[in-house]
Amino acid sequence: MALTMFSDCSSSTTARLLPLNRTGSGFLHLRGSSATLLHLNPRNPRSLGVISTQRCQSSYSPTVAMTTETSAKVIDGKAVAKQIRDEITSEISRMRDAIGKVPGLAVILVGDRKDSATYVRNKKKACEAVGITSYEVRLPEDSTEQELLKYIAEFNANPSVHGILIQLPLPRHMDEENILNAVRIEKDVDGFHPLNIGRLAMRGREPLFVPCTPKGCIELLHRYGISIKGKRAVVIGRSNIVGMPAALLLQREDATISIIHSSTENREEITRQADIIISAAGQANMVRGSWIKPGAVIIDVGINPVDDPNSPRGYRLVGDVCYDEACKIASAITPVPGGVGPMTIAMLLSNTLSSAKRALNFE
Amino acid sequence: MALTMFSDCSSSTTARLLPLNRTGSGFLHLRGSSATLLHLNPRNPRSLGVISTQRCQSSYSPTVAMTTETSAKVIDGKAVAKQIRDEITSEISRMRDAIGKVPGLAVILVGDRKDSATYVRNKKKACEAVGITSYEVRLPEDSTEQELLKYIAEFNANPSVHGILIQLPLPRHMDEENILNAVRIEKDVDGFHPLNIGRLAMRGREPLFVPCTPKGCIELLHRYGISIKGKRAVVIGRSNIVGMPAALLLQREDATISIIHSSTENREEITRQADIIISAAGQANMVRGSWIKPGAVIIDVGINPVDDPNSPRGYRLVGDVCYDEACKIASAITPVPGGVGPMTIAMLLSNTLSSAKRALNFE
Repeated sequence: MALTMFSDCSSSTTARLLPLNRTGSGFLHLRGSSATLLHLNPRNPRSLGVISTQRCQSSYSPTVAMTTETSAKVIDGKAVAKQIRDEITSEISRMRDAIGKVPGLAVILVGDRKDSATYVRNKKKACEAVGITSYEVRLPEDSTEQELLKYIAEFNANPSVHGILIQLPLPRHMDEENILNAVRIEKDVDGFHPLNIGRLAMRGREPLFVPCTPKGCIELLHRYGISIKGKRAVVIGRSNIVGMPAALLLQREDATISIIHSSTENREEITRQADIIISAAGQANMVRGSWIKPGAVIIDVGINPVDDPNSPRGYRLVGDVCYDEACKIASAITPVPGGVGPMTIAMLLSNTLSSAKRALNFE
Repeated sequence: MALTMFSDCSSSTTARLLPLNRTGSGFLHLRGSSATLLHLNPRNPRSLGVISTQRCQSSYSPTVAMTTETSAKVIDGKAVAKQIRDEITSEISRMRDAIGKVPGLAVILVGDRKDSATYVRNKKKACEAVGITSYEVRLPEDSTEQELLKYIAEFNANPSVHGILIQLPLPRHMDEENILNAVRIEKDVDGFHPLNIGRLAMRGREPLFVPCTPKGCIELLHRYGISIKGKRAVVIGRSNIVGMPAALLLQREDATISIIHSSTENREEITRQADIIISAAGQANMVRGSWIKPGAVIIDVGINPVDDPNSPRGYRLVGDVCYDEACKIASAITPVPGGVGPMTIAMLLSNTLSSAKRALNFE
């Protein structure tokens, strides 16, 4: 345990899980940075050639003999998300000029959960910033399924709406599966419809939409020129919204995948075989330095609050991966916040644009 | 390589791939058998309590020091399939007595491929044997998609038909995806519809049907009382009809899965970690003894012809796994033929019965 005694990762037991679509503040816990030029992936013209990379520097001092100070590249999701939003803005501007139309996204919120209201507000703001028209419906907590289904049917029929998003969780008296299945597959910008998941799983089939968070994870790998084909990839977590579709996406790109979950016994040993780790377990600092193969790439989807008396809010957000320890072993890593978080909304905007292009036959 | 020098597994390079749904003759290459009582799985009342097990005995004599002669249980797919067909027969008889109706299965064959005609004939015979009414349509090779779709629409509308099976492969001028998607999801007894695959992948969702061959693999594990939860499972192959759904099924039962495919580099090392191996690679004798962890359970889906001048046909069928070598290391193994092969049709009959029960509201 010597490896962990000076690390900042001992508070995992006090963590409680936040919803995965909670977007972070974007504040990066970086204590230093050094600009380096990225290795470009020649097969991917979208690779980041212009964004300089940071290298993480942690407070963690390993007590074992590590004479060469290594430091992982920081995968800057905030910067990539901004670049994507800029690309989307310019595409929508081109669309408006060419055919006089823009994409539309409808968001339906049932009840008055504060966190859900915040997400909806953020999505609306993000839409406005890139030029997507947003439609919003707020229904009271005690609405019936029929009322909700009526609004879904209206948005399904409205040709100005290219994406429909039902903010989850729904009130308990509603059947989530039933509600989500009512969204037309052509407007399922969340990508949660089983028909989209089925196509994602099948070779030779193309999903209309890929779920936003896992799509954001893969996009980060692409944009940083990290090759996936033939790599060992371990996905921690098998949720419908992150872990499972992330594994299917990695397999579509010819990675050899293993999926770790609550029934897996030797998680550390399996994770240590991975060239690429995508963690969506929702457990603060679960993945320690000893779990990581030297040089591995880490995409940390977890956003977990841990107690922090030094913070004005009394807590701070950390990932599933012990960042301080991982920085010394991995070759690249996403910070929390500022890693995968900002990518989720960017991918939602991207899916909405794709949907509008398809519906309007605009290329 | 000493381990392989006396084995029967050196002819893999001469193998060519046969379609996976080719059903074997059922002949078992067993040179000896010893009746033993199976360990029953208390959680599964369908565990085989009545079928005695055989232990495999191979011609292979390892040259390394193995003082204790071990011998894997033979997982007898032929016997299990017969038991399942008997159960189906009795259920259909109960249905006929209670409501005067029986399940119906429609099979559509386009073109005159001899192998396809044989499969269709076998399916028809299997239906008749258990009391399922079979409907058959044969269309000429040069039929149009529209003609085929017309028959599918008729069967979709026919309440006496509970399952529709399009024999693959279709002629080249037809769009397979388009044709398969035309089959009503409630009659997709093959389980290949992306909506079924999506539900199979998602937690909390239930597919209406599970593809027959992978369902047969899991059924063999269940009936032999082999526990899956928490086990390391390696699936070799990621096809839409076997590998991918087999992996999803294993994960649904809480195995920790890894999927090996053509881009995987260290297949042997990964396979050796598995407690359960399902191989659907279509490569004769690819999995050697050295790939297998002692005590692993092996489900061999491959049916590969290899040259055999001693056979009247000039060839014989072998699996993906070198049976002679595996017998000495695994704790249980399916033979080829007589393992997974007979299960595929049994699962098709089972899916058709389930479909009829659902449609007729019969429990």
